[in-house]
Amino acid sequence: MGILVGIVGHRGYSGAELIRILNKHPHVEPVLLDHREDAGDGPKLRRPSGLRRAACHPDSVVSQNLAAVFLATAPEVSMELAPAFLHAGAKVIDLSGAFRLRTPDRYRKWYNAEHTQPELLAEAAYGLPEFCRAAIPRARLIANPGCYPTAANLAIRPLIAAGVVDRTAGIVCDGKSGTSGAGRKPSQKTSFCEVTENFSAYAVLQHRHVPEMLQISGLDESELSFTAQLLPIDRGILETIYFRSTYIKSSAELIAIYEQQFGQEPFVRLHEPGTFPDLHAVARTNFCDIGVTFDAATGRGVVVSAIDNLVKGAAGQAVQNMNLALGFTETDGLL
Amino acid sequence: MGILVGIVGHRGYSGAELIRILNKHPHVEPVLLDHREDAGDGPKLRRPSGLRRAACHPDSVVSQNLAAVFLATAPEVSMELAPAFLHAGAKVIDLSGAFRLRTPDRYRKWYNAEHTQPELLAEAAYGLPEFCRAAIPRARLIANPGCYPTAANLAIRPLIAAGVVDRTAGIVCDGKSGTSGAGRKPSQKTSFCEVTENFSAYAVLQHRHVPEMLQISGLDESELSFTAQLLPIDRGILETIYFRSTYIKSSAELIAIYEQQFGQEPFVRLHEPGTFPDLHAVARTNFCDIGVTFDAATGRGVVVSAIDNLVKGAAGQAVQNMNLALGFTETDGLL
Amino acid sequence: MGILVGIVGHRGYSGAELIRILNKHPHVEPVLLDHREDAGDGPKLRRPSGLRRAACHPDSVVSQNLAAVFLATAPEVSMELAPAFLHAGAKVIDLSGAFRLRTPDRYRKWYNAEHTQPELLAEAAYGLPEFCRAAIPRARLIANPGCYPTAANLAIRPLIAAGVVDRTAGIVCDGKSGTSGAGRKPSQKTSFCEVTENFSAYAVLQHRHVPEMLQISGLDESELSFTAQLLPIDRGILETIYFRSTYIKSSAELIAIYEQQFGQEPFVRLHEPGTFPDLHAVARTNFCDIGVTFDAATGRGVVVSAIDNLVKGAAGQAVQNMNLALGFTETDGLL
Amino acid sequence: MGILVGIVGHRGYSGAELIRILNKHPHVEPVLLDHREDAGDGPKLRRPSGLRRAACHPDSVVSQNLAAVFLATAPEVSMELAPAFLHAGAKVIDLSGAFRLRTPDRYRKWYNAEHTQPELLAEAAYGLPEFCRAAIPRARLIANPGCYPTAANLAIRPLIAAGVVDRTAGIVCDGKSGTSGAGRKPSQKTSFCEVTENFSAYAVLQHRHVPEMLQISGLDESELSFTAQLLPIDRGILETIYFRSTYIKSSAELIAIYEQQFGQEPFVRLHEPGTFPDLHAVARTNFCDIGVTFDAATGRGVVVSAIDNLVKGAAGQAVQNMNLALGFTETDGLL
Repeated sequence: MGILVGIVGHRGYSGAELIRILNKHPHVEPVLLDHREDAGDGPKLRRPSGLRRAACHPDSVVSQNLAAVFLATAPEVSMELAPAFLHAGAKVIDLSGAFRLRTPDRYRKWYNAEHTQPELLAEAAYGLPEFCRAAIPRARLIANPGCYPTAANLAIRPLIAAGVVDRTAGIVCDGKSGTSGAGRKPSQKTSFCEVTENFSAYAVLQHRHVPEMLQISGLDESELSFTAQLLPIDRGILETIYFRSTYIKSSAELIAIYEQQFGQEPFVRLHEPGTFPDLHAVARTNFCDIGVTFDAATGRGVVVSAIDNLVKGAAGQAVQNMNLALGFTETDGLL
Repeated sequence: MGILVGIVGHRGYSGAELIRILNKHPHVEPVLLDHREDAGDGPKLRRPSGLRRAACHPDSVVSQNLAAVFLATAPEVSMELAPAFLHAGAKVIDLSGAFRLRTPDRYRKWYNAEHTQPELLAEAAYGLPEFCRAAIPRARLIANPGCYPTAANLAIRPLIAAGVVDRTAGIVCDGKSGTSGAGRKPSQKTSFCEVTENFSAYAVLQHRHVPEMLQISGLDESELSFTAQLLPIDRGILETIYFRSTYIKSSAELIAIYEQQFGQEPFVRLHEPGTFPDLHAVARTNFCDIGVTFDAATGRGVVVSAIDNLVKGAAGQAVQNMNLALGFTETDGLL
Repeated sequence: MGILVGIVGHRGYSGAELIRILNKHPHVEPVLLDHREDAGDGPKLRRPSGLRRAACHPDSVVSQNLAAVFLATAPEVSMELAPAFLHAGAKVIDLSGAFRLRTPDRYRKWYNAEHTQPELLAEAAYGLPEFCRAAIPRARLIANPGCYPTAANLAIRPLIAAGVVDRTAGIVCDGKSGTSGAGRKPSQKTSFCEVTENFSAYAVLQHRHVPEMLQISGLDESELSFTAQLLPIDRGILETIYFRSTYIKSSAELIAIYEQQFGQEPFVRLHEPGTFPDLHAVARTNFCDIGVTFDAATGRGVVVSAIDNLVKGAAGQAVQNMNLALGFTETDGLL
Repeated sequence: MGILVGIVGHRGYSGAELIRILNKHPHVEPVLLDHREDAGDGPKLRRPSGLRRAACHPDSVVSQNLAAVFLATAPEVSMELAPAFLHAGAKVIDLSGAFRLRTPDRYRKWYNAEHTQPELLAEAAYGLPEFCRAAIPRARLIANPGCYPTAANLAIRPLIAAGVVDRTAGIVCDGKSGTSGAGRKPSQKTSFCEVTENFSAYAVLQHRHVPEMLQISGLDESELSFTAQLLPIDRGILETIYFRSTYIKSSAELIAIYEQQFGQEPFVRLHEPGTFPDLHAVARTNFCDIGVTFDAATGRGVVVSAIDNLVKGAAGQAVQNMNLALGFTETDGLL
């Protein structure tokens, strides 16, 4: 028997993905913590699934000996549950936006709500291992990054860190996401007939994932234009990033910046310059695939970044963080 | 009986759309000109369609009394056929890229081929009525615009004409197209299993539609970054355009620029600022829908432009041009 | 100005299709009767649509001089609204299942509810013109057929009428429908992520459309096995019908039965034997396409029937019925 | 290092799925045998995949010490390659239709071609473990079943074996398959724009998978009506099977027949009566999910059977057969 870890929100898309990944993990076994009864309707198999279940209560941390608890819940639910699970001794990995921003002011501005746990906000580690690996093992509370910011920051921060971007021209990040990113709750906007054969922009310049991009990339708000758009697919995020540079001289120089940054990273894959990732290649994987091109004559660069929003953009990265937090090999269960 | 017009390439997606539109046109009836025999396989109805057919030959212009001929063909086929049809006395509306660029040099650069009819290149009118309406009725040969440039130019040129864009920062045009834009010929890249649940970029900074955008918008190549991307849908193009401005002070000022430009246009529809078009609203219509937002605090603007690539981006605009060329009401058969 | 007709339920998928069709009708103009306020959220065009609106009240029949009212509503709403609109003098064309069955007992059995207007049930004409054309002009109240039964009855009744089916072996009708058939109200089962790349059966042997099939086809319940299945598409119904016969000797004999039945019908198209319809060919049309094959060696026949569930299966057929009821040409607005 | 096994046809969809599965197998490692050079176009990752490659030649069996070779090739290629690989000492698991039928006559009738290896046809074991488990370990050559027959036979044979079906009424098997079943070679019929938002029947009563269904189920051709239909999805097969019975008295009795047959099978999952499988539940798994209902009043039964056509219908079942042939645990790499 492996080490046990709890999942709150296991009926949502990220929660279901957590179960799928943890069932293949060599050291860990999931326990479903039933927070809200939703109608478990639909077809029923005659053989039970055999998954462990327990009450969604801090006592379960002790009774089940849970090493960690994943919160695949809305931000307000995560703010409510995190303190008690932490107090009961579990590491908490939160997949919501509750603990990602650095200050209550930013939370208020982008989430239109008051933060009820400001001290935990200050304490939480931001769980983007490629840039924040050192802090994660030491943290009790890990804020798993948003899906759009994961793809954006892996593409943008190396450029900013290298100091090659003409920042007065700004950076454009044009984001496209599959519909699972909107969660499992039914709505008009995510019904099949509205989404199929359609495509649309939303939250233009105003998406609540923007502040995460600013925190990690080093850009300020006036420098980054981000648009979110809804793809008629289940899962996947692709972001097309545009910048200008007078320093870079070729696509080869551009890809070298990423090679230097990510050469040893297990979950970032680079394309040859002039070729670009697609969503099939990252579906159901924890990879972020990156492709670049640069037009030296005019100083224009384009970077394309692709992830599975439910894996590297949610459950997979959460397991990557759990591996770091519990001392496993970072890639366990993820390759 | 109406006036007769010929269609070459009626088995392709744009050709089929031409038939669909012309069958509802109040004054015109289509004649299918069979250029190449492709296997007319598939299901067969017992009642014949009743569509007129004739040989794809200049003699048909006289024998059928064709007032115009649509070429829904590849550029090299259009260059081959256009001179003879013009000589036979028909107006020619070409849906390919053969006659859209102003000079043989540009054609060579972007199409990787020699232009065989440079004098026709000089003569052709560019058929974007919203900006080139005056020249179209006088022209023998009309170059129907590309799909990406139609959506791009309707969104970008008003901004450039108004002189409000910070051109040193450049303009980004992030384009997404349905798969019918790639034509009907089978290929690996457009097979169902490759496209469904996928999304990818192609021809990044290098798409052959770029020079049309430059010609009409007034931008030069260093100022415009364009990426084409393949949507897992049949039809529709949505382009997200990013710019910076120190002149504009609000979204209301921004939409006013478009209102002034397009207030009387029958085929351009504007959204209230902060709301944006989607592809369902333009599917199977000749409309271009435009939505905008502007963040005054940071000087960043976003414009979203949507068309049906087979209608306003091809067959519908071709009929709009035919209406102008043959003296009909511009909207005949298109509302 | 044309004759005015009302639409209740214009925000649903069938209602929207009614608007689309009636806007092209040569003699009739729609008036939207707002029954329930649902959030008209989403993008807003700056130019108003120009559609007429009135209260959903019997007084509107007089004040607007409505010749007919379409009820694109749930059965319980149709039962509530129909009497008053009829009393006010309008013809009523009901797209729900409220008035399709012949007796309150059948309604109770298949709809699990009491019928509140049994006298109207007895009075209503079943609006399948291909088989019930004579009664429709005389009726005040027309029960527009269900989508599955329309495709099924057009395929099955000619066989039963011709007396060629081995009825002891029964008939199988395997039905598949696009998701718009489930209506516009959001639900888990019709959300994009559940439907895309999926396929499933529902209401196996128990669908409430079965009694309509029995009433028209002449089969009894033990003779017909019907399964409904959800296709990952927006619109379209295809039904595959299996039967056995010792009378028929060839596919040619089989198609001759349909040719005799439907040779003069404007909205039924027959395929050459051995070729079969698909959903693209009927999308956005009022056609029912039928293809057949028969294996003489073993006495097995297959018939494939395809319609657009929102057109011939709902709004298009409703307009066809309106044309008959108001004395227009049956095909007005539908070709 | 594991035992090595070769894959011919690794660029096709079944071949790619074989690689995916074998990469997770605890005892075996794949070697790609390049049979034909097709343009390895598309994006290129900078880090090589690390997959082993060898020539598609019998010598590779010895040089690479291949325990088995998978042929994910067309039937004519399989007939050409199988003898030499067998002679070189490898077990051969053929995913084509080359060796599935019992006699050259049947092959001629259904494949419209002469069988070039009749003695191998006689020798081959049919690789449907749930019914043919004993013969598989002893066989040199295993004919991996077709996708449609796998789902059909698992659903039909238990009924026939139990003797409960009214065979004079016949059995209907209405099959629907995702587009990957048509293979990776581009064609008009499987291009995105033709398949999306579409559905159609093909090979009605004439599909070449029918004789496999007859061989295993025990039905004769006059008793089984099978139609194949193309779903607008990537992967998955769902078959809806209709029968009549005067012996069965309830859904509970019906499911008991399957429970008795499959109670110990690791890859068959049964649903509670009246609930039915969907394709999401079996996607990317080696499961066959089965659901049933029976209407005792009228003696009509329906069975729904669902698999992933590329896994239980191809590569997964091939690995299941390899496990049996090489003496591994049957479920290795498949759960």
